[in-house]
Amino acid sequence: MGTDLVTELKSILPASQLITGKDLQDRYAHIWEMDRPIEAMAIAMPKSTAEVAGILKCCYRNEVTVVVHGGLTNLVGSTRSTPSDLIVSMEKMNAILELDQNARNITVQAGVILESVQDAAAEADLLFPLNFGAKGSAQIGGIIASNAGGLRVIKYGMTRDLVMGLEVVLADGTVINSLKKLVKNNTGYDLKQLFIGSEGTLGIVTAAVLKLVEKPSFRGSALVGLDSYDQVIQFFRRVDINMAGALSAFEIMWLETYRALSSPPSTPKAPLPYTYNFYVLFECMGGSWIKDTLEEFLIEEVEKDRIRDAMPAFTQAELDWFWMIREDVGPMTGLCKNAQQFDISMSPPLIGEYVQKVLSDLSDIDEIGPVFPFGHVGDGNIHLIVGKQTDDNSLTQRVNEVVYGHLQGIEGSVSAEHGIGLDKRAYLSYSRSPQEIALMRSIKKALDPRGILNPGRIFALD
Amino acid sequence: MGTDLVTELKSILPASQLITGKDLQDRYAHIWEMDRPIEAMAIAMPKSTAEVAGILKCCYRNEVTVVVHGGLTNLVGSTRSTPSDLIVSMEKMNAILELDQNARNITVQAGVILESVQDAAAEADLLFPLNFGAKGSAQIGGIIASNAGGLRVIKYGMTRDLVMGLEVVLADGTVINSLKKLVKNNTGYDLKQLFIGSEGTLGIVTAAVLKLVEKPSFRGSALVGLDSYDQVIQFFRRVDINMAGALSAFEIMWLETYRALSSPPSTPKAPLPYTYNFYVLFECMGGSWIKDTLEEFLIEEVEKDRIRDAMPAFTQAELDWFWMIREDVGPMTGLCKNAQQFDISMSPPLIGEYVQKVLSDLSDIDEIGPVFPFGHVGDGNIHLIVGKQTDDNSLTQRVNEVVYGHLQGIEGSVSAEHGIGLDKRAYLSYSRSPQEIALMRSIKKALDPRGILNPGRIFALD
Repeated sequence: MGTDLVTELKSILPASQLITGKDLQDRYAHIWEMDRPIEAMAIAMPKSTAEVAGILKCCYRNEVTVVVHGGLTNLVGSTRSTPSDLIVSMEKMNAILELDQNARNITVQAGVILESVQDAAAEADLLFPLNFGAKGSAQIGGIIASNAGGLRVIKYGMTRDLVMGLEVVLADGTVINSLKKLVKNNTGYDLKQLFIGSEGTLGIVTAAVLKLVEKPSFRGSALVGLDSYDQVIQFFRRVDINMAGALSAFEIMWLETYRALSSPPSTPKAPLPYTYNFYVLFECMGGSWIKDTLEEFLIEEVEKDRIRDAMPAFTQAELDWFWMIREDVGPMTGLCKNAQQFDISMSPPLIGEYVQKVLSDLSDIDEIGPVFPFGHVGDGNIHLIVGKQTDDNSLTQRVNEVVYGHLQGIEGSVSAEHGIGLDKRAYLSYSRSPQEIALMRSIKKALDPRGILNPGRIFALD
Repeated sequence: MGTDLVTELKSILPASQLITGKDLQDRYAHIWEMDRPIEAMAIAMPKSTAEVAGILKCCYRNEVTVVVHGGLTNLVGSTRSTPSDLIVSMEKMNAILELDQNARNITVQAGVILESVQDAAAEADLLFPLNFGAKGSAQIGGIIASNAGGLRVIKYGMTRDLVMGLEVVLADGTVINSLKKLVKNNTGYDLKQLFIGSEGTLGIVTAAVLKLVEKPSFRGSALVGLDSYDQVIQFFRRVDINMAGALSAFEIMWLETYRALSSPPSTPKAPLPYTYNFYVLFECMGGSWIKDTLEEFLIEEVEKDRIRDAMPAFTQAELDWFWMIREDVGPMTGLCKNAQQFDISMSPPLIGEYVQKVLSDLSDIDEIGPVFPFGHVGDGNIHLIVGKQTDDNSLTQRVNEVVYGHLQGIEGSVSAEHGIGLDKRAYLSYSRSPQEIALMRSIKKALDPRGILNPGRIFALD
């Protein structure tokens, strides 16, 4: 069957767009595993939506499974493939099709890299607000398939909130062209929502219209020390009230996390002493009124004993200094052997008690090294980095049980941003009911009855 | 079959929750047609999600069609019923289940009226930002089913953006409970998106978690006169840049619309003279910095000849005066015989030319009276009120062809806010491709294979 398919593909794609046989060994499987060669029947690299449709028609007819590849930065195994999969890599569909400055949107093919969208927006004096570490590699198609988040979700939302229109090819090769530039459109089902965040299991995104926003003229941040988690939540509300409309990020670091990130071997120095239980780093984006308003607000907060300490940052050097502390996770993974990383979410007021329970349970396990909690507290999204003395699978499971176990009963999510992919499937039921998973399956069956697209991602088909 | 169903329903619902026979005549069919009695086999009024599930199980087994009723304010015929339908009215599921002040969300049953949610939020010093004319009647379930918009979409989004979690009962009685309080949750398909805006055709919404926001402490508006539509679009961008993060509404009135709304018999007087082609009314919500920033900005705009005239409003009396002009559509329908109303959208920069074409084409039709264009230009959403000398059906169709016809080729939407329902079905294909409609049908078939829920809304099943 594999040979048949490759023969068929050769008739619809030029040789330069099809990698087969030994040539596959030159391709890496993941951006973090550049020395692991890819496993696949072949790699097809379409240059147009019509070619994607042609490839999928072949695969559908031959019942060949397809794994979609973007920038290979996925963190939950979604891009992993087997020798019987055809890989469809979107790398050659990398054109920016249109930027409409007055309507403030950009239309791109799925293979365009995030940073290229950011750059194109900046050239037109606009901002594409989505931003995260892998911006130099991650492609828009994969970003949409995984509904990526990042640091400024409070102000600008997740990827879902930035997608205006979508073009998608279904499993059987049907092209759904809905590249609309509409804010409001209540004409039947909002089909694009189905494909955003469904990890490539319902269709291949080939192009998108993305929302751009005006570039804020001023940016201000502050690092704040607080005693209790309850104070953090109350402070979050007061920042949002006082900086109305300008709050763009609100991040938390527990004391030990802050210490690891601001003391040697970490590069940045500590702006505040290691004497508080919680450190909040927040950011406001907007007009120049932010400076005075923010300073007055912080002085009042300290005077009223609502926070212990605060240091604002307004210059680029200050902003870079403060944000390097929060954004560079390297110092934490450096201190951890066999680091296990988590990306979970819950209602923000519940985070304090949750983290306390997890830290307490993990401290009962002998082989557990340092544990670093931090994250986007304004979105209820917490990351945990857990060090372990061994890479033993049973220890990994035990840590999972602690971290995910405490999410049950508080309606928490085992994946705030990264998705389920292949790696978190065992824990999907911790966040979703059997009825929800059954409904996901029936949608999958309606759109991809032969189960050829990104098979086994999120859930097993039967 | 009808008798069988009613007998079955009597065994699962108390008599006070089931209206049958002659008693149906006491119920009105729509809030605007209080003297037209309802047509139905019966009206069931469940008090719990379990009762909704029980009712749907009966209907599914007996293949009886169900029409869901909320506040009966729908504008596209979605609540219309026939003698063979069972009506499920959500009016007795009207409890506010929880308000979490620190997490800023509210959990309500589907039958809660919008104004009650607004009031509950205000009592907790928070804001539920969704707002529109029918707020005293419209129920949350219907609002979610129709993805309602309103005046402040620029800042707070449509209903879709305000729903955090949803509980839905599927056609076969399966309860999908996803009443999550999560901002970020990438654990598989975001199922709630399927039900928001699908006009009750995929499931009955029984409860929802809605996002609340902090109440802005200051509100400022301005009425501005401009010469050209291009200036309106440029001005929109500059307001958004200068009032960064605070812009909450940006409305346009063409000269004749403004004249009708601010001269007798209309109550409010005209803040600006009738000498400009376009009148923009915008609103900013945020901190007290808005006043000075807005005034300085407007002075500069006039000095630089970018706008012709401007008058700001900051006191409650001024704000009420200005917004009464825009919000009360009565004076326009009063001037029109047989008023035909539209709710369309497109990319904002295209509106000027579009309206010009429509006005020109309509002026060629003898029986057309005054035409009033206005709307939420910041969202690309324009309303048109067209007066006609007769109520003749062929004239109605002719007007439809002009208004909807010019949307084709510019990727416009025949329904920005109100939905398709039964009344706009003939025009769905003006905004959605055959492939999109086929995909909607296969989703409908997957979720409601017997086609019992709100049948025929959006599209015919076959």
